[in-house]
Amino acid sequence: MATTAQSVAEVCAGARRASRSLAQLDTTTKNAALNAMAEDLERRAPEILQANARDTEAGEEAELHSGLLDRLRLTEERLAGIASDVRAIAALPDPVGQTIEGFRLANGLDVRRVRVPLGVVAVVYEARPNVTVDCSALCLKSGNAIVLRGSSTAAHSNTVLAQVASEAAVGAGVPEGAISIVTGGDRDELRELATQDGVVDLIIPRGGEGLKNALKQHATVPVMYAAAGNCHVFVDAGADLDDALAIAINAKVQRPSVCNAAETLLVHADAAGEFLPRALRELRERGVELRVDGRTRAMSGELADSLADATEEDWATEYHALILAVKVVDSADEAIDHVNQYGSGHSEAIVTGSTESARAFTAGVDAACVYVNASTRFTDGAVFGMGAEIGNSTQKLHARGPIGLRELTTYKFVAEGSGQVRE
Amino acid sequence: MATTAQSVAEVCAGARRASRSLAQLDTTTKNAALNAMAEDLERRAPEILQANARDTEAGEEAELHSGLLDRLRLTEERLAGIASDVRAIAALPDPVGQTIEGFRLANGLDVRRVRVPLGVVAVVYEARPNVTVDCSALCLKSGNAIVLRGSSTAAHSNTVLAQVASEAAVGAGVPEGAISIVTGGDRDELRELATQDGVVDLIIPRGGEGLKNALKQHATVPVMYAAAGNCHVFVDAGADLDDALAIAINAKVQRPSVCNAAETLLVHADAAGEFLPRALRELRERGVELRVDGRTRAMSGELADSLADATEEDWATEYHALILAVKVVDSADEAIDHVNQYGSGHSEAIVTGSTESARAFTAGVDAACVYVNASTRFTDGAVFGMGAEIGNSTQKLHARGPIGLRELTTYKFVAEGSGQVRE
Repeated sequence: MATTAQSVAEVCAGARRASRSLAQLDTTTKNAALNAMAEDLERRAPEILQANARDTEAGEEAELHSGLLDRLRLTEERLAGIASDVRAIAALPDPVGQTIEGFRLANGLDVRRVRVPLGVVAVVYEARPNVTVDCSALCLKSGNAIVLRGSSTAAHSNTVLAQVASEAAVGAGVPEGAISIVTGGDRDELRELATQDGVVDLIIPRGGEGLKNALKQHATVPVMYAAAGNCHVFVDAGADLDDALAIAINAKVQRPSVCNAAETLLVHADAAGEFLPRALRELRERGVELRVDGRTRAMSGELADSLADATEEDWATEYHALILAVKVVDSADEAIDHVNQYGSGHSEAIVTGSTESARAFTAGVDAACVYVNASTRFTDGAVFGMGAEIGNSTQKLHARGPIGLRELTTYKFVAEGSGQVRE
Repeated sequence: MATTAQSVAEVCAGARRASRSLAQLDTTTKNAALNAMAEDLERRAPEILQANARDTEAGEEAELHSGLLDRLRLTEERLAGIASDVRAIAALPDPVGQTIEGFRLANGLDVRRVRVPLGVVAVVYEARPNVTVDCSALCLKSGNAIVLRGSSTAAHSNTVLAQVASEAAVGAGVPEGAISIVTGGDRDELRELATQDGVVDLIIPRGGEGLKNALKQHATVPVMYAAAGNCHVFVDAGADLDDALAIAINAKVQRPSVCNAAETLLVHADAAGEFLPRALRELRERGVELRVDGRTRAMSGELADSLADATEEDWATEYHALILAVKVVDSADEAIDHVNQYGSGHSEAIVTGSTESARAFTAGVDAACVYVNASTRFTDGAVFGMGAEIGNSTQKLHARGPIGLRELTTYKFVAEGSGQVRE
């Protein structure tokens, strides 16, 4: 495995060399490598947990907040969970070599569009050490070499995890350099990584806005941004209000920390009088803090005094918490405009009985996933049958929505002939 | 149509507004707009040719070289050709609304992956005014608003062409702002265009390395680079030498100025003795200047004295001219390594009778299109049945190879349920 004694450019060059043979590695060998990786994560648990303890102790000394420390901490049980995820990736179909389409030209030339790996993928991420293994496994299965750059907070954990993963893979026949890590924490290093044109094919940042902006500034390598989610549920006039309530609660409460949770509830004025008092009460009972516009407050009955005013900032915020903004709108069109103005293009839902509203919403809302009469919480590679995902994309180029194995590939046209030349 | 009195940001904002309704415009209206555009290009020929004359006269005064002047010049015949291309785009299938795949989750949620427009596409290009119309037509058909930025050399031509196209489209029911142009020539304007995050969805540069590097430096909007092509023909040991000769000649001579023409001929040492004297002579007879390595020279017989030495630079050069570099290699692997080291990932061909070599070459060469026993000249959207193309991509994200209508779209997941929530 590449070590920190090498420069970023050297590590990336090693990954590039590895990527050539990795792209042609058969599925059987890749799966054997993944299963060996899973086994070694369990077998070598003591040294992994020891390295992790160094990170968590340093984190405690640095008084990291408890959520961060929790994400940083590994246990035997969590390691078994990570190993199980790796085995699940081994069980997924290999996208490499699939023919997407094929056609024969009039002159007899047979052309196929065939899936091939991207080459070298760099993943830049924050404190969670499981990302080291998840992303390594997804890249290996899709035939890509990976260059990992984790947070310095998790440097010991990430280094040993990458080492275990790499050694297991190499032992099973994967080329050296297929899994590498750079562990220095400074922004110069990130910049060096982000400008490896022609060596690194793609950078995927999994982190906050600061990281994204740094990459937008400096990256000359293509970047695929794993997304923030400012998602909405819109309850239309005439919607089934039981469905609407169940969907609003599920979208907000079931797992508020994730990107496909809802942040704003939009309610059609014709449904608001009946729906809002009940919905606000039920949401409050589940511990949801409510931030509302004036019309919502006016319809909220005895709850009115306990509600906060929604500000412009609330419409634009992904809370990652049990907070919900609520607004009354006069039409499906107004809901669509609000979603397109403030949403992040992730997951958006309408609850409606009207085919016209459903069609307007699915056509008019500019987002990766648009739901009719269902919760926003379904946006997920595993749920969509794509297997594990490296994140969700809200950008429009290459991959939109879940980024799974297939989204980590590109294609080439392979044309086979018998001497054809162009007239 | 947007005029130069507006700032780049204002023009882009107008395009964004137009893109919302344009995305939902029915195919019939889009086709009617394209046919009206074609008609008006012919009907309004006098004012177009008058504007073009201003550009060509200024170009002559500025002593632009003759090739550039020729690309700049419009005639009635060329306008008819452009109009005919627009009618051909109208006749292509509309990619918008196509379902790429669909599946039903276990809970009954029906999910479809549906093609939708990207939104706003900016095209930055050099002197050829036909690009103004071609790209406008491709973007309109694929439901995208376009912001054009041509060269100042062709400012009058481009402005009137965009105006004719926009007016014809608006007259047929396309929203104002769907086709806009910014005509100032400076790099600040390019920078402003390239940083319209969230407003412009994609920039496609059609120009030289200077333009590409400027965009790599400044762009925060995704960029899809229309490609350079440093393409190779490799003649394997045991190849049919008649086929090899026909393919080498076709790939170099048939149209040397285009990106899928060959720049280097690689010949297996076992074939070189028989193949090279004949091939070099035939290529010379067709006016090809030859730049060769030492082993090629040694096998070139009476031609030896008239051949230039190939330098390191020759292996890396796209000549765009009747010049061919020639090198002898000892194996298919050496040919693959040479192609991957110097090629631009565009179009690569092997001529061989060996299934093993064919398989090694198609798997090992990292390029958009890899040919077995056929000329590199087939890489073309129209030839591949994709209709007109906006260029060829040698990048790996989103689109590789011809960029046609489908490559100007993204997708969204549309999920229809009956109250599903996540457990």
